[in-house]
Amino acid sequence: MKMRAARMYGYNEPWRLEEVPVPDISADEVLVKVAATGMCRSDYQLIHGYFKMAAPMKFPAIPGHEIAGHVAGVGSAVPRSAGLSDGDLVVVNPGWGDGTCRQCHEGNEQLCSGTGSWPGFGPPGGFAEYVAVPYRHLITVDPGDQKPENFAPLTDAGLTPYRGIKKLAAAGKLGPGRTVVVAGIGGLGSYAVQYAKLLGAGATVVAFSRTDDKLTVARENGADHTVNTRDKTAEQVQDEIEAATGRRTVDAILDCAGAVESIALDFSILEPEGAVASVGLMGTKVEVPLNVIVGTELSYFGSFWGNYNDLTEVLALGAAGRIKHTITTVKLDDINENLEALGRGDVVGRQVVVFD
Amino acid sequence: MKMRAARMYGYNEPWRLEEVPVPDISADEVLVKVAATGMCRSDYQLIHGYFKMAAPMKFPAIPGHEIAGHVAGVGSAVPRSAGLSDGDLVVVNPGWGDGTCRQCHEGNEQLCSGTGSWPGFGPPGGFAEYVAVPYRHLITVDPGDQKPENFAPLTDAGLTPYRGIKKLAAAGKLGPGRTVVVAGIGGLGSYAVQYAKLLGAGATVVAFSRTDDKLTVARENGADHTVNTRDKTAEQVQDEIEAATGRRTVDAILDCAGAVESIALDFSILEPEGAVASVGLMGTKVEVPLNVIVGTELSYFGSFWGNYNDLTEVLALGAAGRIKHTITTVKLDDINENLEALGRGDVVGRQVVVFD
Amino acid sequence: MKMRAARMYGYNEPWRLEEVPVPDISADEVLVKVAATGMCRSDYQLIHGYFKMAAPMKFPAIPGHEIAGHVAGVGSAVPRSAGLSDGDLVVVNPGWGDGTCRQCHEGNEQLCSGTGSWPGFGPPGGFAEYVAVPYRHLITVDPGDQKPENFAPLTDAGLTPYRGIKKLAAAGKLGPGRTVVVAGIGGLGSYAVQYAKLLGAGATVVAFSRTDDKLTVARENGADHTVNTRDKTAEQVQDEIEAATGRRTVDAILDCAGAVESIALDFSILEPEGAVASVGLMGTKVEVPLNVIVGTELSYFGSFWGNYNDLTEVLALGAAGRIKHTITTVKLDDINENLEALGRGDVVGRQVVVFD
Amino acid sequence: MKMRAARMYGYNEPWRLEEVPVPDISADEVLVKVAATGMCRSDYQLIHGYFKMAAPMKFPAIPGHEIAGHVAGVGSAVPRSAGLSDGDLVVVNPGWGDGTCRQCHEGNEQLCSGTGSWPGFGPPGGFAEYVAVPYRHLITVDPGDQKPENFAPLTDAGLTPYRGIKKLAAAGKLGPGRTVVVAGIGGLGSYAVQYAKLLGAGATVVAFSRTDDKLTVARENGADHTVNTRDKTAEQVQDEIEAATGRRTVDAILDCAGAVESIALDFSILEPEGAVASVGLMGTKVEVPLNVIVGTELSYFGSFWGNYNDLTEVLALGAAGRIKHTITTVKLDDINENLEALGRGDVVGRQVVVFD
Repeated sequence: MKMRAARMYGYNEPWRLEEVPVPDISADEVLVKVAATGMCRSDYQLIHGYFKMAAPMKFPAIPGHEIAGHVAGVGSAVPRSAGLSDGDLVVVNPGWGDGTCRQCHEGNEQLCSGTGSWPGFGPPGGFAEYVAVPYRHLITVDPGDQKPENFAPLTDAGLTPYRGIKKLAAAGKLGPGRTVVVAGIGGLGSYAVQYAKLLGAGATVVAFSRTDDKLTVARENGADHTVNTRDKTAEQVQDEIEAATGRRTVDAILDCAGAVESIALDFSILEPEGAVASVGLMGTKVEVPLNVIVGTELSYFGSFWGNYNDLTEVLALGAAGRIKHTITTVKLDDINENLEALGRGDVVGRQVVVFD
Repeated sequence: MKMRAARMYGYNEPWRLEEVPVPDISADEVLVKVAATGMCRSDYQLIHGYFKMAAPMKFPAIPGHEIAGHVAGVGSAVPRSAGLSDGDLVVVNPGWGDGTCRQCHEGNEQLCSGTGSWPGFGPPGGFAEYVAVPYRHLITVDPGDQKPENFAPLTDAGLTPYRGIKKLAAAGKLGPGRTVVVAGIGGLGSYAVQYAKLLGAGATVVAFSRTDDKLTVARENGADHTVNTRDKTAEQVQDEIEAATGRRTVDAILDCAGAVESIALDFSILEPEGAVASVGLMGTKVEVPLNVIVGTELSYFGSFWGNYNDLTEVLALGAAGRIKHTITTVKLDDINENLEALGRGDVVGRQVVVFD
Repeated sequence: MKMRAARMYGYNEPWRLEEVPVPDISADEVLVKVAATGMCRSDYQLIHGYFKMAAPMKFPAIPGHEIAGHVAGVGSAVPRSAGLSDGDLVVVNPGWGDGTCRQCHEGNEQLCSGTGSWPGFGPPGGFAEYVAVPYRHLITVDPGDQKPENFAPLTDAGLTPYRGIKKLAAAGKLGPGRTVVVAGIGGLGSYAVQYAKLLGAGATVVAFSRTDDKLTVARENGADHTVNTRDKTAEQVQDEIEAATGRRTVDAILDCAGAVESIALDFSILEPEGAVASVGLMGTKVEVPLNVIVGTELSYFGSFWGNYNDLTEVLALGAAGRIKHTITTVKLDDINENLEALGRGDVVGRQVVVFD
Repeated sequence: MKMRAARMYGYNEPWRLEEVPVPDISADEVLVKVAATGMCRSDYQLIHGYFKMAAPMKFPAIPGHEIAGHVAGVGSAVPRSAGLSDGDLVVVNPGWGDGTCRQCHEGNEQLCSGTGSWPGFGPPGGFAEYVAVPYRHLITVDPGDQKPENFAPLTDAGLTPYRGIKKLAAAGKLGPGRTVVVAGIGGLGSYAVQYAKLLGAGATVVAFSRTDDKLTVARENGADHTVNTRDKTAEQVQDEIEAATGRRTVDAILDCAGAVESIALDFSILEPEGAVASVGLMGTKVEVPLNVIVGTELSYFGSFWGNYNDLTEVLALGAAGRIKHTITTVKLDDINENLEALGRGDVVGRQVVVFD
């Protein structure tokens, strides 16, 4: 049996749309008929070699890591307790650890220090009509009135900022009278502002972007205030924060941008004991002010994707209709031009490839 | 009444040894006859203007922030419950918050976001025969068999790394099978290795320095392994770590150096979910690898001095003789030349000015 | 100058309404003209000797610990940084520690292990026209459109469950897909359901009471579901929870009732790793199931009143109009009969004594 | 092939020593030739039906849950990354979750809320010459100079108090100037005092027992002080604590006894903000003082066995020779009489059945 797939043959070249065999499944795998796969800035970065070191790939490879679909076949060793039957709507938990390391034994398989992998970054991903998935990485979803394209992006764009906000909450930085900033309102940030409200325990949410259109999305998604930071000094940004909140400093920042300037701004506007959580990735080196970090006890947390329980929580919100999406559905045939738009930063919200 | 004091008249000039009036105390203050005051790299940095912004000073000023002495007079409004009597050995808690902000109300007065101060960085400090101290910043010590010069440095050199190690422990990074590095074995680091053993819950302790003499101190103070990092690549350092511990990565680092190269090395050798706590200060900007921080969920904690309870805990260890000191006693008259030696990094352990 | 006050002359007898001198203030105190003082079940318990051991009293005493009023005189040693001027609306932070113990140095003065006290349980309280308060226990409030009687109960009824819910949140028990129960919908519980929603990070909130009227208040204040637990077995209660949430167990419970049966029910319906936080106090001994606590790793947290920062956070919510009140204003003259009603459990919401 | 095994045919009757077939292993299992299996008070309780509800059993059953042995056969689907070869020394991780629930996805399989099990409480255990174990529940040990009987008890007696002490440490209750009590010095407690020293960060360790012989073991294992609590009031116990530590209260207690009187004593001697962690199990109901728990913000944590990472940490200590054992080796033939001794509380340290 054949299926259509987008395949990557090397770095810095367009993906090829091809007919390839539907994958066979092994005893503990499930065949998933893909319904929707989200397009992520990291797909663009993948093309350009950003993950060459972290996730070396064999070509040709099928990318696509934000996958929702329906069960189309169940391996012989999949236990009944997994509760998977043909036709069930499932999403793919993206962290596939090898189960041997401390990180896996904590449930943080996305951080596996052994030989873990992520579908779409090695194992075949979701830019294809079918994908084979180990049964324990599938989560069944009761969709309510939500479509598959509303679940696919929850596995990364909707998951990654959730974990980041949870880290800020767990660090005790949110609550009444506090201010939390979401810096960068792209695919991740437009979800992040919602989590900042939902998990903020009463904190005021401020969105930063260099594009007014994106700030409009942020406000629609619940941001209390917005600041267009383009060409502004830290002091000017603080003037706007003060006008909005009565204080020049903020307590917590979720950085979804990952740009050098964004991180620099973050560390310029924090209250003593404030924290930055970084989920956005752009470039590799960033500069931070040692004297301020030490002298005012700032914390800086890297936060990567999310684990199984995080995803379950996000899906609970999604299925209950408590997450607002800014989604454009696109066709697999148009994937290369859409990747280019993504690379240029032109996309507001999330593009999702849907299959029929 | 007159006393001898070292006074600072401006940045980048030697301190002057002068006769000045013994301070008057206000109703809620205590007059302390100084017995011992530690000399800190930050005294050297103070001269050179490093704290110009954080703690602007009026000249002439009396520096010295690691102070132990004896009660020599008690203000009229000091409550009996404070338990302070003439002749008691006391140390000075160095964080003097204004009591109005969130930080002060958590007990973190050293991080006061209001109008807090630190003795020796504004209010007159301990490089003088007497100092006036608000009663609630004095902690009475039962010295056991310890001399005052063994308590003075516990208020900064012995306090700052203690809080840093506590942060690493609280973040869950220490324990059996884990490795914790103390980077930089100067005044702070030679205490830090001891806390790493004591609070490490069984973790293996590795000391980093660029000077073999300092590594000898580290081993004497309990480090399990040492690495001379001078002119070594991260990979070479990891080879030595692997030889010592069986693993190429470490779980936690207390950075007492604060140099750009030290921080860069720290972030090159961490296990996923690893953490760096910075207490050392040198320069202002450091570069950190965003992709590694995010992709492996590293944490970076600034840790500043310590609060009242931290100091109480350190003093409990000190009074029980559980802290090993590397102390040289010096005279107030020689303070300028000793500051120069400190600035050159020539000092092993801690110099303490003692008064008779 | 004279004022009206309710005074307690002994246990188990009505309070006397008397004319007494307006208190003199010492140098660090502020005279507050009381505007509103909340009536609390603990006032009823105070009469009946419940706090005899914890807070022994000298009679005659003026009770009343939920106090809001206006500055009517400022002591000579109150610093300008305190920002207190005649006429300012202030509330009284109720935990007055002695500042010497670990608890005070963490900011938890309400738990002072030294010689701390609470106004109304020793120091004269708010059932009087004036009260003298140490300046550092006053918090200035910008009332917005809220009346003083909306702030008074926030210092206990509105503060105590806030801290309890914070403990459950800090323990990681709340979030999407989780269920949190508020058990007991009296003065505290009607605030608690609001905090459960606000700090619940998406958790489903279920209210328990034995009175339908109180459950109506709970629903009005945001509870997603309610269960009238009167005469029901744990299994019957679980049937209703399952019907409402799809699961027979819950993840966290804030117990505002404190009755033996309430606590027993709590520990019968928890998910493994679940937690109970107790704020309600009734009787002294409760029975808990050791085998379940150990075998499913339950946590049980006592939570007492709140500290200065907690109160600041609650006031921020209150001043922003984000807290819904169920308040009945009453007169000082009627205090004894209102205390009786409170003791019978007949009061829905909070009674507040207002002065003109 | 046949093997010798102790089998349980029903509650309240002796186990039968029989010849039974060596188990077949399925594709993902490993056959372990048992070297040593520890005897636990819970084995005695198992006989008497204590776990009837929590772990219903089908008879005949082979008990024994503290298992160390050597690999004697590897199933066809065991991945090479598991690193298991014939002859390797392995211990059995005792929490076998079903992998579907939140608890399993956090790595706490011992708390599985699905259909988890524990070997020896359903699946065949280690009181037999061979046992079949799913590969992912085996941990390879490099024994150093330690014998198998020194590893077997680390899977429960040596694991359970480790997790309990970790909970007290994670809750911030340990450190210099603090006191931690280990209540009950049987199989668990004699390990617990060692962890209290190792993870106590400088805390003073006090052991409680009603038997002087056991207190002798506690002192040999590092306890700083001991109190024989037999027939003593809380006040008398506090007198002894004060004589030893200078304070009448303690900050943390690990209760390994689980008796009603032990828990009652625990809650009578805690400092405000103190904590009890319970690992010992005896009876089902215990009484706790609600007013003290609330009024001084005590915490009570159930702690059950340990998870994979906990066990890895304990084994790291064990293999390094950092754990002191009090072990008596016994023969399988004598198991019934040794269980009786255990039930009477006559056993000091741990009995381990060894096979040749």
